[in-house]
Amino acid sequence: MTTRAEAIAYDEADPLAGAVTEFVVADPDLIYLDGNSLGRLPSRTFAAISAAALVEWGEGLVRSWHDWLDLGQRAGDRLAPLIGAGKSEVVLCDQTSLNLYKLATAALDSTPGRSIVTDNSNFPSDRYVLAEVAHRAGGVVRTIESDPIAGPTAADVVAQLDADVGLVSLSHVAYRSGAVADMGAITAAAHASGALTLWDLSHSVGALPVELNRHGADLAIGCTYKYLNGGPGAPAFLFVRRSLHDDLAQPIHGWFGHNEQFHFAPDYEPAPDIRRFLVGTPSILSMQAAVEGIELCVELGIEALRRKSQDLTGLLIDLHDQRLASRGFRLASPRQPDRRGSHVTLLHTEAYRITKALIDTGVIPDYRDPGAIRFGIAPSYISATQVWDAVDRLVTIMDTTAYTTYDVARERVT
Amino acid sequence: MTTRAEAIAYDEADPLAGAVTEFVVADPDLIYLDGNSLGRLPSRTFAAISAAALVEWGEGLVRSWHDWLDLGQRAGDRLAPLIGAGKSEVVLCDQTSLNLYKLATAALDSTPGRSIVTDNSNFPSDRYVLAEVAHRAGGVVRTIESDPIAGPTAADVVAQLDADVGLVSLSHVAYRSGAVADMGAITAAAHASGALTLWDLSHSVGALPVELNRHGADLAIGCTYKYLNGGPGAPAFLFVRRSLHDDLAQPIHGWFGHNEQFHFAPDYEPAPDIRRFLVGTPSILSMQAAVEGIELCVELGIEALRRKSQDLTGLLIDLHDQRLASRGFRLASPRQPDRRGSHVTLLHTEAYRITKALIDTGVIPDYRDPGAIRFGIAPSYISATQVWDAVDRLVTIMDTTAYTTYDVARERVT
Repeated sequence: MTTRAEAIAYDEADPLAGAVTEFVVADPDLIYLDGNSLGRLPSRTFAAISAAALVEWGEGLVRSWHDWLDLGQRAGDRLAPLIGAGKSEVVLCDQTSLNLYKLATAALDSTPGRSIVTDNSNFPSDRYVLAEVAHRAGGVVRTIESDPIAGPTAADVVAQLDADVGLVSLSHVAYRSGAVADMGAITAAAHASGALTLWDLSHSVGALPVELNRHGADLAIGCTYKYLNGGPGAPAFLFVRRSLHDDLAQPIHGWFGHNEQFHFAPDYEPAPDIRRFLVGTPSILSMQAAVEGIELCVELGIEALRRKSQDLTGLLIDLHDQRLASRGFRLASPRQPDRRGSHVTLLHTEAYRITKALIDTGVIPDYRDPGAIRFGIAPSYISATQVWDAVDRLVTIMDTTAYTTYDVARERVT
Repeated sequence: MTTRAEAIAYDEADPLAGAVTEFVVADPDLIYLDGNSLGRLPSRTFAAISAAALVEWGEGLVRSWHDWLDLGQRAGDRLAPLIGAGKSEVVLCDQTSLNLYKLATAALDSTPGRSIVTDNSNFPSDRYVLAEVAHRAGGVVRTIESDPIAGPTAADVVAQLDADVGLVSLSHVAYRSGAVADMGAITAAAHASGALTLWDLSHSVGALPVELNRHGADLAIGCTYKYLNGGPGAPAFLFVRRSLHDDLAQPIHGWFGHNEQFHFAPDYEPAPDIRRFLVGTPSILSMQAAVEGIELCVELGIEALRRKSQDLTGLLIDLHDQRLASRGFRLASPRQPDRRGSHVTLLHTEAYRITKALIDTGVIPDYRDPGAIRFGIAPSYISATQVWDAVDRLVTIMDTTAYTTYDVARERVT
């Protein structure tokens, strides 16, 4: 489909067309293509936050801890099927960087290797965390310079592996190009070399099915505020393969990780299960919001969401080829549907000013230095018609050179 | 005052009597003496959470990050006067255990000493964190066995200090007895030995004025969900004395701690200010709730709150002497008003069953193994009459032996 009529027809037949009514949409004319940065507010979440505040906190007071204590574990169990994990292998807690620090440190503590392999298409923030963890273990981070569109391959990883490498840590879906890494092949390569794998699923979870256990993945982290619509800075999650629960221990020894949390024993004794990766008292209001986003995603069905995501990212790529390539844009995401996540990245030398102009037409994408516009297609609330209209407005901006009226000086756009 | 009429007269003259109307009080008959565990819900907080969800997130979407980005710093600046800190010395982020880990590690990284002095009246959870931090630095934790009521003295600390000690980390107000440590003398002793100090203010902040800078304290952490009424698991805070901002660096290198957060540079460069102690994306909904609790406390005035807290904890101690000591209770908090925080602890061999019986009469205290009942007096919403009535119900429970109908088997009470 490349015409607006075809896009409308797609939407009319879309089994997920009604899902948008699950969200608070304050401005129906806004085309929100930044769900890969912060997902929309589900209506049920507003109800849940209100109840968590007024009923659970306001009325239940400290007694509500009876229900809150294992909220992170229950939320993890709900999330588990979305990432191919089992019961009690996933827990919601803390933030992605903190979880990455905990698990990467635990991994290097448990293996002879002291160094970490990562990739320059991994989140810069992840790379900062990993560099310091490796440094403190007496090792270094080895950063693959992979193809900026395709991301790291198993061969790239193999080229870095030796006995000094204890951990391979990559993004499953690259934050910039949206490339999907080959989790199975990379995990097998790491294991063959005696290293563990730690996957950042922030751009995967809720956008495509992840199969951690099928691929034998060891560890994973991810956020809940992108495609899971968990809310700004919602608690992150972490996954530890069950057979590693005995062997791995993380370094931040808080009371939520203790085997007997309320015994107030003088010494730390890690819980024998996934709780040992917890630290302190979780932020309940933000956690309750995340739970609702997870539930909604499970209900809509990750397979259906994936199909629609592939269709709409495909539409955007087709429209790029038809209308944008000739106007100075360059596709920076994989063309093969099963090799890309749920956003499409276009490069342009004037990307920054174009993004500002696009926002003023009522389309919100996401700008990333240098020169990249990311179009996030959250399949639960984006339609084919919206994708078509966004591209159409982009064409108009280019043909009228409307973007040239904007300042090139950088300020944060989205 | 020891009669109910005197308690009523106190409440009628109490300049803070109206403050209770700032809170959502679902059951006016409930006597909530557990604000030292989880404070009440301020009405303004419910309004703020609703706006944060519906307007900021729902309507503003990713654009709201423009205002959210420095929310933790702005909240820290509002909190700073409550703890005697200056502008840009305090920030809200993460949880207490995580902040403790970050600052304790930063401290040991910056001093020749590798060991940590703490005390057995410090939170067990803090002691778990400190033990692992010292272990990873090649040192140990030296735990003062201090007087269980009075807590650690400067002399206790001095006895542990030598060149191997890089950090002294204590609770300012002991979680069990409520004893206030002598921050000035202990800090001076630590400094004389070349060690830094790290104070846990969880039981201090919002209950009594803290004067970090006057005492030359180096580092502090604390939660916002007790006397600040910030909500269940609300974000914690951390304080770093300004003159240490250049020398200290914490080990979890996330993008919120980077000097140029949105440059996505390949390498980590810590921000030159308090931001270097941040890690990842903060939980905004929980943070907005915490901000309201802080604002309310500032408005009510920490000096007035402290005066009332001393009056009501004094009332409870007087009533203990008059009516409870003869019934098998023993006071386990300091008698001197300026040496105790805002809760009073009573010991009894049947404390667990008595707590359960008391809850069933509509009084919520807090039970802590072994054998301690903590009565938290949050001065913003507790009245003298409530304290009197709570003791009166306790007397009835003892005289009717009503507690003996409860099971001795432990389950979590509050």
